[in-house]
Amino acid sequence: MASSPRPALLLLLLGLSWASCRLHIPPHDQVARVARFIAHQCDWASMATISTHAPVAGQPFSNVFSVSDGPPGSSSGVPYMYLTHMEVSVQDLQVHPQASLSMSLAQTDYCRLQGFDPQSPLCAHIILSGSVVQVNGTEADYAKKALFSRHPEMIDWPTDHSWFFAKFNITQVWVLDYFGGVKTVSPDEYFQAAPHRKHH
Amino acid sequence: MASSPRPALLLLLLGLSWASCRLHIPPHDQVARVARFIAHQCDWASMATISTHAPVAGQPFSNVFSVSDGPPGSSSGVPYMYLTHMEVSVQDLQVHPQASLSMSLAQTDYCRLQGFDPQSPLCAHIILSGSVVQVNGTEADYAKKALFSRHPEMIDWPTDHSWFFAKFNITQVWVLDYFGGVKTVSPDEYFQAAPHRKHH
Repeated sequence: MASSPRPALLLLLLGLSWASCRLHIPPHDQVARVARFIAHQCDWASMATISTHAPVAGQPFSNVFSVSDGPPGSSSGVPYMYLTHMEVSVQDLQVHPQASLSMSLAQTDYCRLQGFDPQSPLCAHIILSGSVVQVNGTEADYAKKALFSRHPEMIDWPTDHSWFFAKFNITQVWVLDYFGGVKTVSPDEYFQAAPHRKHH
Repeated sequence: MASSPRPALLLLLLGLSWASCRLHIPPHDQVARVARFIAHQCDWASMATISTHAPVAGQPFSNVFSVSDGPPGSSSGVPYMYLTHMEVSVQDLQVHPQASLSMSLAQTDYCRLQGFDPQSPLCAHIILSGSVVQVNGTEADYAKKALFSRHPEMIDWPTDHSWFFAKFNITQVWVLDYFGGVKTVSPDEYFQAAPHRKHH
């Protein structure tokens, strides 16, 4: 190994190749399954809101949030979030509850290893339209399990921030997973789809 | 190696540790430098627009775009993009040119290796407010160099899509790189900052 000019690079590529083997994206024409797959693979999303903050009030605002639709291997399709009203985008939602979440396999190692540019439709991504809604009771219990299992750091976030559990209430799913433009999936089709390969 | 229970995982971690060594984020109180660092590290951004498409016209819309502020190691601070009017968000921009770009070190290996949750302020991210403007002449030449050097796949994108070069014209920079809430940086401060460590 020591005689190789780039041993660390070789290690990186070998390691990443192994990691990508775990990612079995459904066929691109099974659009709802692709959407469910991406929603489960991604640990975070970009959320667009209408800003309420000067000097950009009324303009779109993009921000980063951790999400989870279930513990690893257990996908509900519902992106859950852990939010505080101290956060600028969450303040936007109190005035304009409509929002949009985008999640891309560019967030995983998949696109890099496949050689797909982040803007290529082959580097599959989804856009969810809808609104952010606080959840309570048993749904909050599920949200907590979904989020804390994949974001263990959250358990220790400062209690004086008044964190609450929320879900993204999906009204429309947009999928970019192949050439030919964006495709849409209804919430019903999305929630009925199986994100992972069926076992025999 | 064969006797190790997880040789592939070891390779992955070793490789990623090496990769992360290249990432020297500026101190968190040098906010403009942090912003320039993130803008140069990220190969793609999430762009929020106001949608013009049914059934979500007037609502925010989040989408994924490849960006480059310069070839590797040569940072201009200006996010350049390669766009087509066939794209839904670009169609939004023709009606509502105001937009927002977010870029996060969660897109790199930095946050994972440091153990920073994507939503933690320590997993530094920036939000740019402004508008998307087509560029021409020598600036288009620079945009082409900046983009094609980091996104070589673009060279072969279908010519019948009428691709054009554009820049994100920044009016405000928002930085989340530490506890205590979002900080703002003016375009002047942002463009005057040196993103990388000075050499002696």
